[in-house]
Amino acid sequence: METSEIDALRALIAASPRPQTLAERRERMEAVTAIDPVDEDIRLVPVSAGGVPGEWSLAPGADAARVLLFLHGGGYSSGSLRSHRTMVTGAGRAAGIRTLAIAYRLAPEHPFPAALEDAEAAYRFLLEQGHAARQIVVGGDSAGGGLTLALFQTLRAKGLPLPACGWLVSPWVDLEMTGASIAQKDAVDPLIHRAYLDMLAQAYLGSATAPRNPLVSPLHADLSGLPPMLVQVGSAETLLDDAVRIAGRLAAFDGAVRLSVYPHMIHAWPIWHHRLAEGRRALAEAGAFMRRWIDG
Amino acid sequence: METSEIDALRALIAASPRPQTLAERRERMEAVTAIDPVDEDIRLVPVSAGGVPGEWSLAPGADAARVLLFLHGGGYSSGSLRSHRTMVTGAGRAAGIRTLAIAYRLAPEHPFPAALEDAEAAYRFLLEQGHAARQIVVGGDSAGGGLTLALFQTLRAKGLPLPACGWLVSPWVDLEMTGASIAQKDAVDPLIHRAYLDMLAQAYLGSATAPRNPLVSPLHADLSGLPPMLVQVGSAETLLDDAVRIAGRLAAFDGAVRLSVYPHMIHAWPIWHHRLAEGRRALAEAGAFMRRWIDG
Repeated sequence: METSEIDALRALIAASPRPQTLAERRERMEAVTAIDPVDEDIRLVPVSAGGVPGEWSLAPGADAARVLLFLHGGGYSSGSLRSHRTMVTGAGRAAGIRTLAIAYRLAPEHPFPAALEDAEAAYRFLLEQGHAARQIVVGGDSAGGGLTLALFQTLRAKGLPLPACGWLVSPWVDLEMTGASIAQKDAVDPLIHRAYLDMLAQAYLGSATAPRNPLVSPLHADLSGLPPMLVQVGSAETLLDDAVRIAGRLAAFDGAVRLSVYPHMIHAWPIWHHRLAEGRRALAEAGAFMRRWIDG
Repeated sequence: METSEIDALRALIAASPRPQTLAERRERMEAVTAIDPVDEDIRLVPVSAGGVPGEWSLAPGADAARVLLFLHGGGYSSGSLRSHRTMVTGAGRAAGIRTLAIAYRLAPEHPFPAALEDAEAAYRFLLEQGHAARQIVVGGDSAGGGLTLALFQTLRAKGLPLPACGWLVSPWVDLEMTGASIAQKDAVDPLIHRAYLDMLAQAYLGSATAPRNPLVSPLHADLSGLPPMLVQVGSAETLLDDAVRIAGRLAAFDGAVRLSVYPHMIHAWPIWHHRLAEGRRALAEAGAFMRRWIDG
């Protein structure tokens, strides 16, 4: 394990001032994520994805007919095209496919179901662009992982074709925070803590949505009929049990699910794959998983 | 999913008479497992592995310096070199390494810790034969998966070097049967049911061992410091939650663990890899996992 790499990243995160206001939290999200450049050979093109601001990326030699639709993390209230650009483009390169990242509307200005509506709009946009569902992967980290599972439920309910597979990194799937790791990993997780999650959940739920609604907490969802799913998580995460439990639920519904645990990695560590070998390993695993299932 | 293949296997298992006595259970175990031949190009050599009856296998081109020590399933009271020979030799071919299967002593004639003592003796035998620990993988299915984790605890406690990685197929790690899938999957599991597990647990525990002893129920063990682990399980198993929960426990202890769920597969399905494409996929995944970690 490259503990020196993760320790250096921990020091960098610890040096960033703790945010208080919503604006400060959004700023810090950018400050700690977008610290590594996007590779110069990646082609980035802005796009309106069914009315949702988005961005295509394509690495040299990647297949433009196949697409990863990416839903970024940030607790439904922060994160952007910029914050996750290094992660998204790295995933596209690893899979050898195009990516479409979207800037879905954020809470508290836009609580549930705004983000889900935008994710659905972007998926429909891909279908309208001529991409068959079996050429599409949907993935996301943290809240984006929960949102991915909400989108899958919505597509299934509306009779839309489901994508080839799903990719969940450090997914947040329980807005009641009942996982044992919320407390057990509190001291080793530099990013995600109970009080912060409570605040994020409140902002996304607003006054109208129950925290056990399966579209905000897929842990309580009927997950039958979903495509194969890769769930990746670090062992130094308060959300570790969200990943373990959602893998268990997917399995209970006869899903083809792989849970892959990366020792000592922190929340959404593939964001920092330029400085973490374990981040590159996670993207390589995800890329191989996508290639196996896409169009297959 | 090749449901026709698994349905055909289910029919074959259902046609085998339900056993009543211990002797009948042991006979049935052989009757339903050893139904496919071992490939003719596999070289099998009997061996006394530290006093424990064992069998080497080697596929053409496989590396004889690297070894999978295999601990068969059968609830600690049935199973043999013969019952799992097709599975073991298939795993060795997939990994490109030698295998050593052992016929550890069985309950109720030999309750805990007889099986564990024999597993330790076989591991020490491999070390004495000149195999470095990093050239060894230990794996097993069902009770053999639990026994693998018991062996790892024992090696760690005694200061012996741990193997390169572990391979657990449909592991039985909770002799109290507290997993929700014990009931939830009862109707779809053709092999393993609560009453049968109760009987097996009683036989292995004898009168002296508590069911929460971490050497019989590794779910309750300190699992820190163990090597990378692949856990494979079918979704049509009462023991599904044993696999999910042990993966979660390994993760909680910062283990590099991968849980891989195979939809609609039944308990220890790689035994029947000659007739199940999903069995061949599981062995291919296990082989790749072993090659990645062994000697690495």
